[in-house]
Amino acid sequence: MNVNGKPYRTIWLEGDIVKIIHQPFIPHEFEISSLRTHQETATAIQEMWVRGAPAIGAAGVLGMVQAMLHSTPDNYRKFTVDAADLLKNTRPTAQNLFFEIDQVLHCIEQANSWDDACEKVLTQANHSVDTSINACQSIGRFGSELFQDGDSILTHCNAGWLACIDWGTALAPVYYAAREGKQNFIYVDETRPRGQGSRLTAWELGQENIEHAIIADNAAGYYMSRNNIQKVIVGADRIAANGDTANKIGTFTKAVVAFEHGIPFYVAAPISTIDFDCPTGLKIPIEERTPDEVLYTWGMADNGEFLRVRTAPAKSSAKNPAFDVTPAKYITGIITEEGIYQPADLHQLNQ
Amino acid sequence: MNVNGKPYRTIWLEGDIVKIIHQPFIPHEFEISSLRTHQETATAIQEMWVRGAPAIGAAGVLGMVQAMLHSTPDNYRKFTVDAADLLKNTRPTAQNLFFEIDQVLHCIEQANSWDDACEKVLTQANHSVDTSINACQSIGRFGSELFQDGDSILTHCNAGWLACIDWGTALAPVYYAAREGKQNFIYVDETRPRGQGSRLTAWELGQENIEHAIIADNAAGYYMSRNNIQKVIVGADRIAANGDTANKIGTFTKAVVAFEHGIPFYVAAPISTIDFDCPTGLKIPIEERTPDEVLYTWGMADNGEFLRVRTAPAKSSAKNPAFDVTPAKYITGIITEEGIYQPADLHQLNQ
Repeated sequence: MNVNGKPYRTIWLEGDIVKIIHQPFIPHEFEISSLRTHQETATAIQEMWVRGAPAIGAAGVLGMVQAMLHSTPDNYRKFTVDAADLLKNTRPTAQNLFFEIDQVLHCIEQANSWDDACEKVLTQANHSVDTSINACQSIGRFGSELFQDGDSILTHCNAGWLACIDWGTALAPVYYAAREGKQNFIYVDETRPRGQGSRLTAWELGQENIEHAIIADNAAGYYMSRNNIQKVIVGADRIAANGDTANKIGTFTKAVVAFEHGIPFYVAAPISTIDFDCPTGLKIPIEERTPDEVLYTWGMADNGEFLRVRTAPAKSSAKNPAFDVTPAKYITGIITEEGIYQPADLHQLNQ
Repeated sequence: MNVNGKPYRTIWLEGDIVKIIHQPFIPHEFEISSLRTHQETATAIQEMWVRGAPAIGAAGVLGMVQAMLHSTPDNYRKFTVDAADLLKNTRPTAQNLFFEIDQVLHCIEQANSWDDACEKVLTQANHSVDTSINACQSIGRFGSELFQDGDSILTHCNAGWLACIDWGTALAPVYYAAREGKQNFIYVDETRPRGQGSRLTAWELGQENIEHAIIADNAAGYYMSRNNIQKVIVGADRIAANGDTANKIGTFTKAVVAFEHGIPFYVAAPISTIDFDCPTGLKIPIEERTPDEVLYTWGMADNGEFLRVRTAPAKSSAKNPAFDVTPAKYITGIITEEGIYQPADLHQLNQ
């Protein structure tokens, strides 16, 4: 996708350096960060400089490449297992991170030398990146068929290309539909506490000249009740085998209200997001993040300074679950790179 | 209620000056504003220095007192009618404003001289303030009976004493229950875009030493789904004759999700909030406020400066409806000063 007309990916490798679009500064500044070690890559995941389930997966893979390249023929097996632990321990909910890292570990196990392991890991990383981008594009193709010209669509959080390597998950159909000439209007949930909708989704849509308006998370139900929203589409951090879907906090609420209004509610995610070992959403661990994310808001002051302001009283604290689980019954369909599946049919994708 | 241990009201009259707690600075600074004319009082309502349906009603009454006192025996009828128009045109949704101002106008119509009108208006204002405070206290008494010791309760926006003259509506039962020795935990919806929950409700609860946590509006459904919330209680800006209730944007969403979980959802409001001339919620006008409220967040920077930060991209805009309507079917009961009513029984209160 484009930034000021120039094509970019969210994350890529240059030699042994992982480069990422530094997301906390968006939309105010566009900056590329260089992560020199797998430890720095782990920090970038933890601090959410790179975020979104598929992008975290990619960061995990590229962090493993770094670990492999920085290991020695003597220590590489233990070094990469330790690196995998570090990278996996950054964030507990997104399935793609575990899936992608385990694929790399498997390559290393299969290798018969350090050289062979390096080659296998690099091949796997390239394959993983290509697979991820192609999956997102396919999600875009399948998902765009759901959109009528003129539909207004609600999305929550950022499941755009900044959450992936390219295209996005929930936003891929939006971009695909736009390329097909469909005119759609996007209601962008602000997505407190971290504001990924306001900061990232709105920025992406603006860069691609797609008509949109940011709304307070509280306003989505109002627009549904007034028939202003024809479809809801969101991403996923982990999908259980029965279709229950963990995604950014607030997703569940939108799903319930959409269900109440008979508005189709779609989840868009690559198959790597599905955790077939997890029978239902009750088993998905939910990350609890710092109360500061609720007590403060980061943004650009009128003088151009990027800073945080506290809205809450000094004496008050907050609770801050980062995700919730939307039970399968509220989900109309799951848009994958293999097509659109009812939650009950997901098992067909388990190979 | 208390501020740093000293009793205060939200709004009061000193001579011909209306004094208010200046709410945009809370929780960071506690400051009293003096409004010298009914025009200044109208501005204070419009700019939300004073807000909350019953408090707006009180501001309307006291603004009318100012207009009466600043009129002359020659112009007082036209002057007060014009003042009523100005005060009513500040905010379109809250019913109490219209109800209270019309009561004052009625007194003036009944008067046979300027002196008589002044006396009648002052008497009416005192009566209105006393009635409002007593109503809130009664709401507290009736509402507190609904709370079990140990219940966790969700509230949205600020329907505390800052939204009234004293006690509050939705928070009155919380304060009443606390005085009865019940231990309840309050989940405080942040209430974007203006953050009345984070800024005002949390501050009020802290001042009264009531245990609470601020949550992102997105997190309320999560806590309901985990059985962490036993009751929801909110205020109202206008209640239609059939019980449909206009309240702060986001209320409707909480009601739908509470309904889905079988969690009782209560509206607390004085009878003056009920618009018996309004048959259903479809007829309640919804105020659309400036997009800036969504695009920016006000708060206290780390250096102590009170300022706004922009979260959204420069090119993006927002939509900002200030209220939504919760249909009566989602409302378990409406707590008034006369007791708790099912929405279908509200007509019994129409005298």
